[in-house]
Amino acid sequence: MITDIKVIAFDADDTLWVNEPYFQETEARFCSLLEDYLPHHTVSQELFKTEMANLSLYGYGIKGFMLSMIETVLQVSENTANPEIFHRVLEYGKEMLNKDIELLDGVEEVLKALFGKYRLVVATKGDILDQERKLKKSGLEHYFHHIEIMSDKKEKDYLKLLKHLDCRPESFLMLGNSLKSDVLPVLALGGHAVHIPYHTTWVHEQIDHTIEDPRFYQFNSMADILPHLIS
Amino acid sequence: MITDIKVIAFDADDTLWVNEPYFQETEARFCSLLEDYLPHHTVSQELFKTEMANLSLYGYGIKGFMLSMIETVLQVSENTANPEIFHRVLEYGKEMLNKDIELLDGVEEVLKALFGKYRLVVATKGDILDQERKLKKSGLEHYFHHIEIMSDKKEKDYLKLLKHLDCRPESFLMLGNSLKSDVLPVLALGGHAVHIPYHTTWVHEQIDHTIEDPRFYQFNSMADILPHLIS
Repeated sequence: MITDIKVIAFDADDTLWVNEPYFQETEARFCSLLEDYLPHHTVSQELFKTEMANLSLYGYGIKGFMLSMIETVLQVSENTANPEIFHRVLEYGKEMLNKDIELLDGVEEVLKALFGKYRLVVATKGDILDQERKLKKSGLEHYFHHIEIMSDKKEKDYLKLLKHLDCRPESFLMLGNSLKSDVLPVLALGGHAVHIPYHTTWVHEQIDHTIEDPRFYQFNSMADILPHLIS
Repeated sequence: MITDIKVIAFDADDTLWVNEPYFQETEARFCSLLEDYLPHHTVSQELFKTEMANLSLYGYGIKGFMLSMIETVLQVSENTANPEIFHRVLEYGKEMLNKDIELLDGVEEVLKALFGKYRLVVATKGDILDQERKLKKSGLEHYFHHIEIMSDKKEKDYLKLLKHLDCRPESFLMLGNSLKSDVLPVLALGGHAVHIPYHTTWVHEQIDHTIEDPRFYQFNSMADILPHLIS
């Protein structure tokens, strides 16, 4: 049993619902658009480079992804692309923003069981409007006290979050699919972190070492956390 | 003297610092880019129409503005625009995101005087990363408990905010330059609202009636609020 927890924060994308596969699907369509210029794999690399170069300026989320795709079109085509391609990129992005929500296994069961016993919040990167819309569409909104949009998920961002929540790190538990964003910075501050791996992870979120910490928990399914939080 | 206030929320753009003039400046440059196709005034109208059509999908902020400019290029040029134009749009947007911060009159004096006496927060629309960066650059960050990014500023959004802050409407005071976004919804919920007009207002934020409410205050300069909040 994990004791003295007051706030449980859930990552959203690929923790509550499917997300990364939609980015990968859109990226594949995007690479096909540019196959007259460069092979898929190279376009994909160029897009990733552009995304990383823009990350400090655009932050996370679909709008930044759309702008990086447009910039990649200009680079890859050396400013010769047919304007129709930009049209398609806008279309792909809007489709992503309008996607239906596909909940992950066990999510609703876990929220229902924890509701009323802990303060539950969503703590996620990305664009606020998009994340609010997804939360609303998900039907899960009423379980959560509120949604926290974070510009990043580094230690300094969790410090801000804890201050904002008026919560001590020892009373905070973060649950998510990214070791880099949901686990490591929280453990570093003395908080608890639960890792629920998702079958696919964005390269930018990957780490290559193992974690040993008494406040770290790893489960294959979200429901496995329940015996540790409910007596 | 306004009594029983616990939380004072400040709008950011055109309340703490200059913002709208930068959008207007960029829009003027954007219209010049397309003058081979249509007169300035018509491009400006087309851009506004596109922004409004995209608002429910993109929300507020510079990234959505950039995407709407790109869409307007495609519309106005009927898909014949030189890719160089898209390049310039991305450049203009990135320049906006990198703009220096110009504080408005009296802001620092007011924050200094209120600090420690009330919980001060920033409550703003837009992209979180952009607003956090502006707050950091402004040198005002230490006065605020935290920054609240709102997807919109309608009654339902303020309800969420109040729940999030655990604050009753009577103990909440919102201060900003927009009657539509910072004043009307807050008064409707029973909160206090202070209007500090800015010399220019985005058309989307304009209203055409007067407000009479015992919890409404209007001042020409932010510093005029101090005698009402500090005894």
